[in-house]
Amino acid sequence: MSKIAVLGAGSWGTVLANLLTDNGQNVYLWTHSADQAQTLTTTHMNEHYLGDFKLNPDLQITANLETAIGDASVILFVVPTNAVRSVAEQVQPFLAAQPSWRPILAHAAKGLEKGTELRVSQVIDEVIKPELTSGLVVISGPSHAEDVATHDITTLTAASTSLAAAKSIQKLFMNDYFRLYTNQDVLGVEMGAALKNVIAIGAGALHGLGYGDNTKAALLTRGLAEITRLGVKMGADPLTFIGLSGVGDLIVTGTSVHSRNWRAGNALGQGETLANVLANMGMVVEGVSTAKVVHGLAAELGVEMPISDAIYRVLYEDAPLKQVIADLMKRDGKPEFDFEIETL
Amino acid sequence: MSKIAVLGAGSWGTVLANLLTDNGQNVYLWTHSADQAQTLTTTHMNEHYLGDFKLNPDLQITANLETAIGDASVILFVVPTNAVRSVAEQVQPFLAAQPSWRPILAHAAKGLEKGTELRVSQVIDEVIKPELTSGLVVISGPSHAEDVATHDITTLTAASTSLAAAKSIQKLFMNDYFRLYTNQDVLGVEMGAALKNVIAIGAGALHGLGYGDNTKAALLTRGLAEITRLGVKMGADPLTFIGLSGVGDLIVTGTSVHSRNWRAGNALGQGETLANVLANMGMVVEGVSTAKVVHGLAAELGVEMPISDAIYRVLYEDAPLKQVIADLMKRDGKPEFDFEIETL
Repeated sequence: MSKIAVLGAGSWGTVLANLLTDNGQNVYLWTHSADQAQTLTTTHMNEHYLGDFKLNPDLQITANLETAIGDASVILFVVPTNAVRSVAEQVQPFLAAQPSWRPILAHAAKGLEKGTELRVSQVIDEVIKPELTSGLVVISGPSHAEDVATHDITTLTAASTSLAAAKSIQKLFMNDYFRLYTNQDVLGVEMGAALKNVIAIGAGALHGLGYGDNTKAALLTRGLAEITRLGVKMGADPLTFIGLSGVGDLIVTGTSVHSRNWRAGNALGQGETLANVLANMGMVVEGVSTAKVVHGLAAELGVEMPISDAIYRVLYEDAPLKQVIADLMKRDGKPEFDFEIETL
Repeated sequence: MSKIAVLGAGSWGTVLANLLTDNGQNVYLWTHSADQAQTLTTTHMNEHYLGDFKLNPDLQITANLETAIGDASVILFVVPTNAVRSVAEQVQPFLAAQPSWRPILAHAAKGLEKGTELRVSQVIDEVIKPELTSGLVVISGPSHAEDVATHDITTLTAASTSLAAAKSIQKLFMNDYFRLYTNQDVLGVEMGAALKNVIAIGAGALHGLGYGDNTKAALLTRGLAEITRLGVKMGADPLTFIGLSGVGDLIVTGTSVHSRNWRAGNALGQGETLANVLANMGMVVEGVSTAKVVHGLAAELGVEMPISDAIYRVLYEDAPLKQVIADLMKRDGKPEFDFEIETL
């Protein structure tokens, strides 16, 4: 039985903490809100995020960070991307103070940090130096938290430059409805998870305009091709994009009405203005800010990304959707892939 | 203006022939049935396959093969997979008799020939030697014919070992709603198109059993991983499986109620017997026979294909669906990919 700290009691953090408890681990779920910790502890539910889903009574919930992480063998960050840095800064002193304690760190946040545009693992690495840990693992892949709660079969990637750390995380999570696959391409996994949100906006927009299955598949596949092109240029393994954090997450995000990014795109396709769409969503649409980052990266690295670029023009330059689609279709004929790889 | 012969007046052949006519080419659509040729010519519709969709009046329809193919610069086979050999055998003597005439051959059939298990391009190559042609191009990708008829944006792969031939085909087809991308990996394109039908049965079965988005994405992604593993072992380019004939077609076939394979799987998931399902479909479910071929290939080449194997056990060994799913979930933890590739 390992002591595991899960930081962040949103829907995903709560479901993962509960699953690990069901798997027989000694789990502490931390929330920065003492009120929330009290409510979850007394009701055994996280009603705000998960309705009447009953938590395992053995799951321990606390707003005290030291109680949660003290001597844990794994510390899992499931806070929003832009909160990762401040939570890591709170964790760091405890690790620095205890040289014999070197937990595995993991995170399940998807996105790039606002302002720095760093990947989440880069943020954690910056704040908590690798020598204070036994490795850093990224957990990513196609997963609605609510469906994991009801034991829908779910598969995720556990990515780390340390295969041993990835295997430890894999072992803790696996059960008869939850499988993790190890991967050593942290950059590819994190970039795929962030970039797919831009493509999901495009998929929603085409749906809002009335296009069908062929067009959906065209957008997702050619979107994936350009994400892969950028990722490979940045040093990612192209196979990662065929995997759970690439294709897998793109299928869920790009075809599901449960995806915020897809819904934002769909509203744009139906003729709503971006300002209205964002006001009506009432929450962050990650793909909108990521589109700007991608635009910068593509220019800086000289990577052609026509679909992401078209979405950028709609979001930031008021280009009409029908115009950017017509422009895309007017481009010269291309090869399907303009880079080559070799099987080792 | 090129003369193009399209052989086969089912929904896909008719739509492609009509599109090429709209693009300003001189197109002959051939059907083996004189009655069908007569009906299409007089009604300017192919009502049996395409309802009240109006054909371009310039499209020429004939049951005379020599009229259709004589001096054509492109001959496109769009007959069912198991009819390709006999139609190629009828075409071959015309080419053999006229040494100055070397058309590009193309086909848009998905599947493996029954009995020989050959890919369609291999069948054509066997019957019409490459020296009688200016190259052989495979057209494949995510495309409901009905949606192309209504100008849904559609993207396909034009794959050939001859890049020049692929580019010629690309140029003939492209317009403001239809884009082709060239690819030189014929084996990967044809294997992806055939193998995805097996995975689509699995996706349908999970839906029929009541599983949700996470499980659908898991099945499609891990199915794609094992198709890629087999394809790479056979000599395909792994990138092809991230492309239109791989991921693209899998998204359409594995998530659409319009797919026969998906519907057959869905019925199995709802508890119907295979015999009943096949009887009720009233048409070929390609994935069922392909599952047997894959089972043989995987054994012969020593490639692990747990999902295809599970589907084979359900189809051919009466294994209960819930049992094969439980067995899949009991497997040890794995790496996401057990082969490596290098970017050139």
